[in-house]
Amino acid sequence: MEVLILGAAGMVGRKLTERLTQEKRLGGREISRVILHDVVAPQAPEGAPFAVTTATSDFSAPGEAGKLVASRPDVIFHLAAIVSGEAEADFDKGNRINLDGTRQLFEAIRAVGDGYRPRVVFTSSIAVFGAPFPDAIGDEFFLTPLTSYGTQKAIGELLLADYTRRSFFDGIGIRLPTICVRPGKPNKAASGFFSGIIREPLNGQEAILPVPDDVRHTHASPRSAVSFLMHAATLDGTKLGERRNLTMPGVSVTVAEQIDALRRIAGDRVAARIRREPDPTIMHIVEGWPLRFDARRATNLGFKAEESFDDIIRIHIEDELGGKIAS
Amino acid sequence: MEVLILGAAGMVGRKLTERLTQEKRLGGREISRVILHDVVAPQAPEGAPFAVTTATSDFSAPGEAGKLVASRPDVIFHLAAIVSGEAEADFDKGNRINLDGTRQLFEAIRAVGDGYRPRVVFTSSIAVFGAPFPDAIGDEFFLTPLTSYGTQKAIGELLLADYTRRSFFDGIGIRLPTICVRPGKPNKAASGFFSGIIREPLNGQEAILPVPDDVRHTHASPRSAVSFLMHAATLDGTKLGERRNLTMPGVSVTVAEQIDALRRIAGDRVAARIRREPDPTIMHIVEGWPLRFDARRATNLGFKAEESFDDIIRIHIEDELGGKIAS
Repeated sequence: MEVLILGAAGMVGRKLTERLTQEKRLGGREISRVILHDVVAPQAPEGAPFAVTTATSDFSAPGEAGKLVASRPDVIFHLAAIVSGEAEADFDKGNRINLDGTRQLFEAIRAVGDGYRPRVVFTSSIAVFGAPFPDAIGDEFFLTPLTSYGTQKAIGELLLADYTRRSFFDGIGIRLPTICVRPGKPNKAASGFFSGIIREPLNGQEAILPVPDDVRHTHASPRSAVSFLMHAATLDGTKLGERRNLTMPGVSVTVAEQIDALRRIAGDRVAARIRREPDPTIMHIVEGWPLRFDARRATNLGFKAEESFDDIIRIHIEDELGGKIAS
Repeated sequence: MEVLILGAAGMVGRKLTERLTQEKRLGGREISRVILHDVVAPQAPEGAPFAVTTATSDFSAPGEAGKLVASRPDVIFHLAAIVSGEAEADFDKGNRINLDGTRQLFEAIRAVGDGYRPRVVFTSSIAVFGAPFPDAIGDEFFLTPLTSYGTQKAIGELLLADYTRRSFFDGIGIRLPTICVRPGKPNKAASGFFSGIIREPLNGQEAILPVPDDVRHTHASPRSAVSFLMHAATLDGTKLGERRNLTMPGVSVTVAEQIDALRRIAGDRVAARIRREPDPTIMHIVEGWPLRFDARRATNLGFKAEESFDDIIRIHIEDELGGKIAS
């Protein structure tokens, strides 16, 4: 089986590649070849048990998507996107990559024809939802994105469902919750602190908490994100019916509960590295975000997230810190 | 004030043009000029109290949308679309007109710049909804279209909301229920019988009813459709917040209730012209359609449909039959 990953150089793309390398198989079938694509050169994993091809291009440029699917990959992971902040700052770029790029990929698959009908796994986002929200967002709550990124993702979902309905491919869209704990350096994303208040203290560094302790949010670990993708790649599509886009489960906790979990796992000294410094701008942005999801459809279809925020922290320590905490 | 109508040669476009001609004003402002556009030549109304320009082109062709907005019309009615059946039969044509055309119109408005921010009224459709439905579809029910036409309309709604949020224009999308009684000859649309069983008998002709009498559906008259458009053109946009797309109200009745209304208004002899001839194909299509809507937001914002199906029939007799019934 051949696998194509668009957006392979990103954090989730790299972790997905690692997992495929470890598991060697997808849905019980041996992987013969993986094509890693991104706009910057993706790194081929060392000692992969299958052939690896890397490709670097702007997949929204005419003809580029066609090249990527010419070898008829069986599973296509479409993780490539201009992120929220950049899509808001550069409207044309966001539309070109997130909207036109996605459509050109879908059209390129359709153009292969001759019975080609791959599984397409599309990463959508909870940014398709916009306030005001119910307390828990159910599977039939409508999409009113409040960012251009969310709009582009919602359009991708609609196209995915229609291309699937017309049998041009077999698509599943998964709406990821906030991925926590994100590895790496602190960034300036408004949601960055949700990871930062865990990652930095565990690393012996101070972290800033810009919002009150009672702010609630929904998280899943990077490991869960990869598991969602793997499950979406192999799930029986007929179980989804016509509704091909799913909100993924996650752990809904307040910031206070995040900090309690950190204290339980790493002790008071680590938890004391969080400094409260309220930031009205970030507080305002965060107020517009969903609190929690009733992700019943995904759960019934076998998608699983962590049971608790403690698990999310433990996974970070195992996967990123080699099991060690800076005390 | 200048008004542009795309899709001006269609049934709703012609009736909207008539209404503007009668009223001379829109939202209290005198109309100075109306631009009527369609892919076939629209007919200029006789004795219009304002300048009328007609334009014929494919508005999805490069540069065409820009020509239409170059004079900076204050209100733009975007009624142009490839209809449901054709968009399903010709996927590329539907996408080109309904998706790319709409986007090119929106981009052309944005490109005018220099403070230009017209009211854009976009006709969407209840085809954005897909079964399974709740008994009444509320304002927060999500969009899962089951046709390419519905998908393209849903994408238009998302773009409209985002272009509005970014202040590129001031858009309102209205989801029309089934328009009944459609004037003119019987057509082969699956929904055609809802109008046919009223129009043909009133015209002294037999009509075929292909579904059981207990089938429920939601209707509004052509006169209401025009009223929705006029109201949407002049409504204070700030009252809508970020959610710029609205399900319009309508009259929810069973076929039996339609026939009862016809009998009350035109007598037994007219109602006897309906012949029951069940058609499994049409029955199956109709089963996938919404039954009724809880169009609370639109109603609260002042959109009004008829109170009863009797009213819908009376409007047809007044507007299309000069008040006379073939007895």
